[in-house]
Amino acid sequence: MGFTIIKNGTVVNSDNEFKADVLIEDGKIAQVAETIAVPEGATVIDATGKFVMPGGIDTHVHLDMNIGVFSTIDDYTSGSRAALLGGTTSYIDFINPDREIGTFVDAYNDWRARADAQTVTDYGLHCSVPWFDEQTAKDMETLVNELGVCSFKHFLAYKGRLQLSDEDIIASFQHCKRLGALPQVHAENGDIIVAMQKDFLARGLTGPASHPTRPAHVESEACERACTIAAAAGVPLVVAHNTNKFSIDAIERSRKRGNRVFTEVCGIHLALDESRYFDPDRTWLDVAHHVLSPPLRAREHVDALWGHIVNNNVDLVGSDHCSWSTAQRQRGRDDFTLIPNGCAGIQERTLIMWEEGVMAGRLTRTGFVNLVSANPCRLYNLYGKKGVIAVGADADISIWNPARDYTLSAQTHGSKIDYSVFEGKVIHGCPETVMVRGTVMVDDCKLTEAAVPGFGQYMPRKPFAPAVYGTLEFADRKREDMEKRLVRN
Amino acid sequence: MGFTIIKNGTVVNSDNEFKADVLIEDGKIAQVAETIAVPEGATVIDATGKFVMPGGIDTHVHLDMNIGVFSTIDDYTSGSRAALLGGTTSYIDFINPDREIGTFVDAYNDWRARADAQTVTDYGLHCSVPWFDEQTAKDMETLVNELGVCSFKHFLAYKGRLQLSDEDIIASFQHCKRLGALPQVHAENGDIIVAMQKDFLARGLTGPASHPTRPAHVESEACERACTIAAAAGVPLVVAHNTNKFSIDAIERSRKRGNRVFTEVCGIHLALDESRYFDPDRTWLDVAHHVLSPPLRAREHVDALWGHIVNNNVDLVGSDHCSWSTAQRQRGRDDFTLIPNGCAGIQERTLIMWEEGVMAGRLTRTGFVNLVSANPCRLYNLYGKKGVIAVGADADISIWNPARDYTLSAQTHGSKIDYSVFEGKVIHGCPETVMVRGTVMVDDCKLTEAAVPGFGQYMPRKPFAPAVYGTLEFADRKREDMEKRLVRN
Amino acid sequence: MGFTIIKNGTVVNSDNEFKADVLIEDGKIAQVAETIAVPEGATVIDATGKFVMPGGIDTHVHLDMNIGVFSTIDDYTSGSRAALLGGTTSYIDFINPDREIGTFVDAYNDWRARADAQTVTDYGLHCSVPWFDEQTAKDMETLVNELGVCSFKHFLAYKGRLQLSDEDIIASFQHCKRLGALPQVHAENGDIIVAMQKDFLARGLTGPASHPTRPAHVESEACERACTIAAAAGVPLVVAHNTNKFSIDAIERSRKRGNRVFTEVCGIHLALDESRYFDPDRTWLDVAHHVLSPPLRAREHVDALWGHIVNNNVDLVGSDHCSWSTAQRQRGRDDFTLIPNGCAGIQERTLIMWEEGVMAGRLTRTGFVNLVSANPCRLYNLYGKKGVIAVGADADISIWNPARDYTLSAQTHGSKIDYSVFEGKVIHGCPETVMVRGTVMVDDCKLTEAAVPGFGQYMPRKPFAPAVYGTLEFADRKREDMEKRLVRN
Amino acid sequence: MGFTIIKNGTVVNSDNEFKADVLIEDGKIAQVAETIAVPEGATVIDATGKFVMPGGIDTHVHLDMNIGVFSTIDDYTSGSRAALLGGTTSYIDFINPDREIGTFVDAYNDWRARADAQTVTDYGLHCSVPWFDEQTAKDMETLVNELGVCSFKHFLAYKGRLQLSDEDIIASFQHCKRLGALPQVHAENGDIIVAMQKDFLARGLTGPASHPTRPAHVESEACERACTIAAAAGVPLVVAHNTNKFSIDAIERSRKRGNRVFTEVCGIHLALDESRYFDPDRTWLDVAHHVLSPPLRAREHVDALWGHIVNNNVDLVGSDHCSWSTAQRQRGRDDFTLIPNGCAGIQERTLIMWEEGVMAGRLTRTGFVNLVSANPCRLYNLYGKKGVIAVGADADISIWNPARDYTLSAQTHGSKIDYSVFEGKVIHGCPETVMVRGTVMVDDCKLTEAAVPGFGQYMPRKPFAPAVYGTLEFADRKREDMEKRLVRN
Repeated sequence: MGFTIIKNGTVVNSDNEFKADVLIEDGKIAQVAETIAVPEGATVIDATGKFVMPGGIDTHVHLDMNIGVFSTIDDYTSGSRAALLGGTTSYIDFINPDREIGTFVDAYNDWRARADAQTVTDYGLHCSVPWFDEQTAKDMETLVNELGVCSFKHFLAYKGRLQLSDEDIIASFQHCKRLGALPQVHAENGDIIVAMQKDFLARGLTGPASHPTRPAHVESEACERACTIAAAAGVPLVVAHNTNKFSIDAIERSRKRGNRVFTEVCGIHLALDESRYFDPDRTWLDVAHHVLSPPLRAREHVDALWGHIVNNNVDLVGSDHCSWSTAQRQRGRDDFTLIPNGCAGIQERTLIMWEEGVMAGRLTRTGFVNLVSANPCRLYNLYGKKGVIAVGADADISIWNPARDYTLSAQTHGSKIDYSVFEGKVIHGCPETVMVRGTVMVDDCKLTEAAVPGFGQYMPRKPFAPAVYGTLEFADRKREDMEKRLVRN
Repeated sequence: MGFTIIKNGTVVNSDNEFKADVLIEDGKIAQVAETIAVPEGATVIDATGKFVMPGGIDTHVHLDMNIGVFSTIDDYTSGSRAALLGGTTSYIDFINPDREIGTFVDAYNDWRARADAQTVTDYGLHCSVPWFDEQTAKDMETLVNELGVCSFKHFLAYKGRLQLSDEDIIASFQHCKRLGALPQVHAENGDIIVAMQKDFLARGLTGPASHPTRPAHVESEACERACTIAAAAGVPLVVAHNTNKFSIDAIERSRKRGNRVFTEVCGIHLALDESRYFDPDRTWLDVAHHVLSPPLRAREHVDALWGHIVNNNVDLVGSDHCSWSTAQRQRGRDDFTLIPNGCAGIQERTLIMWEEGVMAGRLTRTGFVNLVSANPCRLYNLYGKKGVIAVGADADISIWNPARDYTLSAQTHGSKIDYSVFEGKVIHGCPETVMVRGTVMVDDCKLTEAAVPGFGQYMPRKPFAPAVYGTLEFADRKREDMEKRLVRN
Repeated sequence: MGFTIIKNGTVVNSDNEFKADVLIEDGKIAQVAETIAVPEGATVIDATGKFVMPGGIDTHVHLDMNIGVFSTIDDYTSGSRAALLGGTTSYIDFINPDREIGTFVDAYNDWRARADAQTVTDYGLHCSVPWFDEQTAKDMETLVNELGVCSFKHFLAYKGRLQLSDEDIIASFQHCKRLGALPQVHAENGDIIVAMQKDFLARGLTGPASHPTRPAHVESEACERACTIAAAAGVPLVVAHNTNKFSIDAIERSRKRGNRVFTEVCGIHLALDESRYFDPDRTWLDVAHHVLSPPLRAREHVDALWGHIVNNNVDLVGSDHCSWSTAQRQRGRDDFTLIPNGCAGIQERTLIMWEEGVMAGRLTRTGFVNLVSANPCRLYNLYGKKGVIAVGADADISIWNPARDYTLSAQTHGSKIDYSVFEGKVIHGCPETVMVRGTVMVDDCKLTEAAVPGFGQYMPRKPFAPAVYGTLEFADRKREDMEKRLVRN
Repeated sequence: MGFTIIKNGTVVNSDNEFKADVLIEDGKIAQVAETIAVPEGATVIDATGKFVMPGGIDTHVHLDMNIGVFSTIDDYTSGSRAALLGGTTSYIDFINPDREIGTFVDAYNDWRARADAQTVTDYGLHCSVPWFDEQTAKDMETLVNELGVCSFKHFLAYKGRLQLSDEDIIASFQHCKRLGALPQVHAENGDIIVAMQKDFLARGLTGPASHPTRPAHVESEACERACTIAAAAGVPLVVAHNTNKFSIDAIERSRKRGNRVFTEVCGIHLALDESRYFDPDRTWLDVAHHVLSPPLRAREHVDALWGHIVNNNVDLVGSDHCSWSTAQRQRGRDDFTLIPNGCAGIQERTLIMWEEGVMAGRLTRTGFVNLVSANPCRLYNLYGKKGVIAVGADADISIWNPARDYTLSAQTHGSKIDYSVFEGKVIHGCPETVMVRGTVMVDDCKLTEAAVPGFGQYMPRKPFAPAVYGTLEFADRKREDMEKRLVRN
C-alpha cells in the first residue's frame, strides 16, 4: 500500500493532545512525531487546523437484524457506511441465538457469514443469552476461547422472548466470570412493563405516546438488580443504554461499594428528550419514529446524564443503532406495543458527542476520544490495535475539521431510513477524512470508492481484558482471606 | 368495672405532652383534664413524675408459628405476656396460608381459634400471600370485607416456599389497591440468597457466621423492586424490617417521586450489629442465637437507621418477634441454612426505643409514642380506638417511670426462650403499670392475676385507612387527566 | 359570649380525622364528641360535608415593614384580614432591630405598639439578629425570658446590612442554646450574590430576569453552612424558605447525622416556577412582580420540594408574606437590585397547600393540618392553645368546604397589593367560615364586621419548646460521656 | 549519556499496559517497541516479570517549610530522596508568601533558591494566597506568565493566619480564570474550628485526641462553599486532601451540575483511620504523631474514599508530606492546638496505592499509574514530558517488582523523621529501580551515588492546561448566549 502521511495536524488521543505528523505504512501507524519528513511516493494529507483522532468504535449496534416479520432497514453495508460518515471506523454487533434454529455457535456462523459479506468496515460480535442451560454454557466457552466473542448480553425485559429469570442470570454471570467474559444487561423490568402495557391498552391508550409506559424507575430497578447480582457473582458488568439519573445513580452506588460496573449511554439519549412523545403538534408517525427502549426521558434526565459524564461515571457511548423505516413503524398503528423498537445513530453518535459535549464545554477533546473510541476499545479488549494514534496501531483515523459545519439530515445520512430524528441539527465540526487501516473511506465528507462491502474484517477478541478483569485475582484472594473467619463455629 | 383515675402524671401522645389526670370508665377513657375530681369508689393510681402513654402496639409478630418441624417457643400466651411487660398492649400477627391445608379463609379460621384461646391482650391479623390465583383473589376480598384482615405480606425471598414472582406480586398489589388493603413486603432477593448459600456450603462455610450471605444490597435491591412495582400499581406499600441505609434510601427515592411507601424498622436492628456474628470469642450457639432475616448489619447501618428516624423517614417500629429455643437452633448444627430464623423482641421493642431513642436524645417523648404506638395504629387503621390517650379511646395505657432502671435478661423476660440476645442491657426507665381496656395487667413491673389467656380480643380492621389511602382518589383523577394526552395519534 | 356549636362536620387534626360536633364556650373549645346536644341559646353552625380544622398559623410574615424608602403595602390590618380569608387565624412577624434607632428591646416595643393597634387576629414575634455583641446577648435574654420572643433570625445574605459573619453566627447560636431559643437562618451566600450582581450590572443585564443571579447552589451552600454551625453549637435550627432540592438535601444530610434541623418551605415556591422570569412574553413589571429572595426555581425543584413533603422532610409551611405595590417595584427600573424583594402569600398559603397538596394526592388532610397549623405551633411552642381542635384550646377554627371552588385574584384578595401573582388559579375547596377565639371573622367566604383592628392579641411564647429541645439534655449528657475519653494523654 | 535499554518488562501507562522494551537516549525515551535490539555500549536493565512505569509525581508536598518556631524536619534533599525510594521522580511544593517579608515574587525567589540548591529530583511550585489585593493580582500574573507557577492555594481555615474571606476568594478565583491558572483550596471552616478548639480547651480537653475537633462536616461545608464560589466564577478548582465521603459527595454534586472540580486525596487518608486517636493504649506521643489537618477519619470514610476511586471521582493522589520530629510535636504538650500539623508520606504514597489499590483489587495497574503519575501531570500541565512512557518523554521511570515485599519503617525510610506512622506495614511489591531523566537514582531499592542535591531541576509550567481549561471557551460562549435572554425588559 505504500506510505501515507498526515501533516501539521493536532493528534488527539484519550490521554493527551499534541501537534504531530502521522506516518502510515501498510495500514498501520509507523511513526508519530513533531515533524516527519515525507517519504518518497507518500500520499500527503494536510491536517492544518484539524484534529487527527482515532476512528470511533460503536460497541452497540444491530444491523441486518431479523425480528420475524422483517429485518432492520440497515444491513451491514449501509450501516457501516453510515458509521464511516460519522468518523466511526469499527463497531460491535450482537448475535441473537434462536432456539428454533440452533445453538449459539450456529448463530455465530450465520452472523459471521452475513457480516463478512456485507461489512465495509471492521466489526466484532457480542452474543445475547436468551436462555441458559448446559449446552449454552459449552457454547459460551467455545465462543470465548475459540471464536473471539467475549461479551454476553442478558435481558431483564422482553418477557416471553428474551427475558431471563434472576436464577439464570446468576448462573450465566458466574459462568462469565470463569471464562473471563464480560456480561452486559438490558436493564428494564419486563414484568412491570407487560402489566403497564396491558393496563394502557385496556384503557384505549394505544398510540406511540404510551410507549413511555416503561418509566425511568422501571429501568433503574432492573439496573440495581443487575448490579446486585453481578456483585454477588463477583463479576464485572456493563449496563447498556442508561437513560436516566436513577439508573446511573444505582450504578454509582454499586461502584462505591467496590464493584466493577461499566456504564453505557447512547448518543440519542444525550440529545433528545421525551417532549418528542408529548408534543401535541406531532403526528402519529412523527411520534412513532421515536419509539426505542428504553425510551427518551425528561430533559432533567438528559442533563443528569451529561452531569454524570462530567463526573467521569460514563464509560461507554454507543448508538444502539437499530433502524426501522416509516413503513415498518406502521405495523403498530393500532397497538403501540407492535411498533418495532429502535432508532438510527451509528453515524450521529460521534457528531452529537462533539456538539453537545466538546462544543458545549462539557468534554475536553481527549475526553471525547476516550468516550467514543479509546475506552470502548479498552473494555472490549481491542485497545492498542484500535482506539489510539500510536505506533503499531491500525491506521483507523478520523480527521476532524472544527471549522466545517455539518447538518444532520435524512437527505445526506448514510443509513437507508427515510427520515431522521435529528433532522436539521447543525454540528459545529465534522470528520472530513476517514480512513480504515490506512485506506481513505471518506474524503471531503463523502464516501470514496474504497468503501465497498467485504473490505471490513472481523475482529476476534480475547477474554480477561486487563481494563475489566485487571487485578480481580487479587480481590478474590482478599475475599477468600476474609471468609476464613467464617469457617469456625 | 367502675372508675379508675390516674392522677398527677404527664400525658404523652403522639402530638403533644401535658400534665393531666386521666379518668377511665368501663375500660374506656372518659376524661382527660388538668385536674379531675376523684369519683367515689374509683381506683386511684398516682403517676407523679411519670409518663402516661398509650400502650404500645407491635404490628409485626409471629406467635405459635409452625414451620413443619416445630413451632415457635412462644405461643400467644407467653408472647402477649412478654408484650405487656414491655408496655405493649396489642399486636398484629400473620396468618400463613398453606396450600396443602386449605384456603386463605381456612387459615384465617385456624389462626383465630388458636389466638382467641391463648391471647392475654388484644390482637389483629395480617395475612401472607404465598401464592396468587383466582381463589386467592376471592379470599382476599372476604378477608378484607368480612373478616377484618386488611394487610397482606408478599415475600421476595424464601425461594421454593413463600417467594412470589414479580408477575404475581404485581397482580396481588393491583388487587390490594381495588380492595383498599395495604400490601407489605419481605424484601430480600431469594434467588441471590440461594446462589450464595450454595456457594458457601460448597466451600465448607457451614456455620452461623455465614448467615449474612444475605448482604445489605441483596435486601435493598428487593426493596427498590417492591417500591417500583407498588408505584406501577399505584398502591401504598409497607416495607417490613429494613435493616440498612441502602434500603431506606431506596424507599426515600420512591417517596420523593410521590409514592406512599411506609418504612418499618425492628427494635433489634436498632440495638445490635453484625459484630455478634464475627466476634471470634463467641461460640456456635451464641452466634446461632442471632440468626434472623434480614440479619444484623454493620454499626454504620445501625447509625444510619437512627439517622433516618431523626429525619422522619421511619413510620413503624415492630419487633418481628419469632422465638426459637437453644434446642431448636441446634437443628442447623451442620448447615446454617437449617437454623430457624428469628429473634424475640415483643417485650424489648419499646424499651430499646426508650433507651436508644429518648435517652440518647434522638427522639422526643412524643416521637417515641408516635413510633411505638400511634403511627402503627394509623397505618393499620386502629387509631382513635388504640394509640392515643383521648376521650373515647380504649384505656390501653402504659405508665412509664423514667427514674426506674430495668435490666433486660432471660431471668426476667416474659418470653419462654432460655436466653436473651439483650442480656444485661440496662434501660433507664420502664413501664411500671400497664393496663388493657382499663384492667391492670402489669403492676410494679410484674404481671397481675388479670393477665390470663382469653382476656385479649381480636381487633378487626377496615380497609381504606385514611392515613394510607387518604386522598389517593384525587391522585388517580389527576393521573387520568394526564393520560388523556396520550389518546391522540 | 355564650355557646357556639359546630354540628355534623368532620374534625381534622394533625393526628386524626373523625366525625364530631364541636362545642365552643367563651372562645375556647369546650367539647368534641360524636354528638353533642345543642345548648340553649347556642349559635349553631352546620358543617355537614365540611371539614372542621384548626385555623392555620403563618409563622413567617413581614407586615408594616419599613425598608427606609417605604414600608410594605400591607400593614397588620390588611395583612391579618388577608390571613383570615385563607383560614389562617394567627401569624408570627419579625422584629428588625436597627442600630441607629436603639436596642433589640427598643425595637420590640416599637413592633408591639404598631401591631397591637392594627392587628385583627392573634400574632407572635420573632427577632432578627443583624449584629451580635454583649448588649445583644443581654437583650436576647430579656426577649426570651420576659417578652415572649423565643426565636431569632440570622442572615447569611444581604451583605452590608443584615449579613452576619460565621464567627458571630456561632456566638449567637451558642447563646440561643443557653436560652432555649430557636435560631433561624436566611440561607444564601451574600458574598457570592454581590459578586454576581456586580458582574451582571457591569454587563448591562439590569432587568428583573437577572434576579435569579442567586442560583440554587448559592442557597444550598449557605444552608449547609448554617446546619454545620448549628451542629457544632449543638443547637436546633430552622432553615427558612427553602426553595430547591439541594438545600433540603443538605438539611437531610445534617438530620441523618442526628442534628435537629427544621425545614420551612413557602407556599409560593410550591406553586410557581422560574418560567415567570424567563418567559419572553412577560413585561418588565410582570417579571418584577415576582422578585423575591430566594427566587422562584426550575420546575424540577418545585417537584422536589413536594417530594420532600411526601417524604416527611418538611416541618413548616410559611408564606414569607412581604408585599410591594406595582409603584414600589418601579424603584428598580434601571437596576434589578433595587426592586424591593418579596411577594404576598399570607392568604394563599393554605389554599395552595390544599390544591397542590390534598387535591393532588400528595397530602392527606391530616398532613395538611399538620403543615399549615399543628407543626408550626409545636416548633414555636404554641401547640395546645393553638393548632388543634381539642378541649381547652382556643376556638381558632377554619371550616373548609371541599365542594366550593375559590379563584385567587387581586379583585378579591385581602391584601392591599394591586396585582396577584396567582391571578386566576382555581382552588377546589376553601375556608367558608373562620373564627378566632370563637368569634366568626369570615362567613360565607367574606370578612364579617367583627374583623376589626385591635381584636387580635399578642401571643408570648416560652423557651425550651418540647418539640424542639425535647430530650436534648440527654444528648448533651451522652456527648460529655464520650468526651471523657479525650481527657487522657 | 549514551543509551540505556530496559528489556522484557511490561510497560504500564495510564491508558494501557503491554510487553515492550524501552530505549533511553540522553535522558529521554527514544523508542518503545515489542523488541528493540540492544545498541552498542548500552546499559541493559532486565525487567523480566516487572512493570515499567512512569515515575510518580507528588503534587502536594511541603519541604523545608518554616512555621516561625522551626522548619519541617525534611528539607528538599531528604524529601526528594524519600520520594525516589517510593518511585516518585518529581513533586510540586508550595510557596508561602509572608507579608512581613515581601511580595509573592520575593517569596518565589526565596523558594527557588533553596529548592534548586537542595533538590535531588525535579520539582515545580504552587503558590499560596494568604491575602489578596492589587499587588497580589500583579504578582500572580508575573508568576503565571513569567515564572512557571500556575496554581494557587486558598485557605478557608487557619483563621488569623492564612484564612481568606469569601469575598477575597471570589476575587482571586476570578483572577485565576483570567490568567488560566488553577485555584486550589484547603477546605475546612476556620471559624467553626476556632470556636470548637476554644470550647475544648476551656473544658480541659487539651490532648491530641481533641485534634479531630475539626469533624468531617466542617470540612465538607468548606468544600461545598469552595465549589459554589468556583462555579460562580466559572473557574476550574482543585479541592486538596479530601478525607471523607461528605466532601467528595459535595464535589460530585458540583461536577454533576457541570463544574470542573478536581478531587485530591492523600495516601495517608487512604490507609489509616481515626482509631489512631482514640485507642486508649496509645501514648500522648503516639497520638500526637498523627496530628494532621484534615485529620484521620472513621473507617467508614476510608472505605468511602476507595469507593470514590472505583467510581472514578478521584483525580489526584498526593501526600501532603509535611514532616515533624518527635521533639517538634512536643511543642503542643499542654495544648493540642500547638502541635505542628502534618505527616510524612512522599515515599509511602505510591506504596500505599499499590497495596491498598492494586493488591486489594480496587485499581488496575493502569489506574494506579493514572492516579499517582499521569493525571496529576495532566492537571498541572506537565503531561507528555512527565507521566508517560512514550517517545520524547523524560526517562523518569520506576521499575516495579511485584514479587518483592517491602516493609515500611522508620529504620529504612528516606525521610529524616524518627518514627513512621506506617511502621511495619508490608507492601507486596515495590519500585526496585528508579531513574530520573535516564539516570538511575535507586537501584535494588537503595539510593545510588547519583542521588545528590542539585541534580533536580525546576519544572516551569504553562497556564491554560488543556485537561483543565480544555474547551471552557465554548462554555463561556454558551453562557453568553443564554444571558442574552436577560437583557430585555
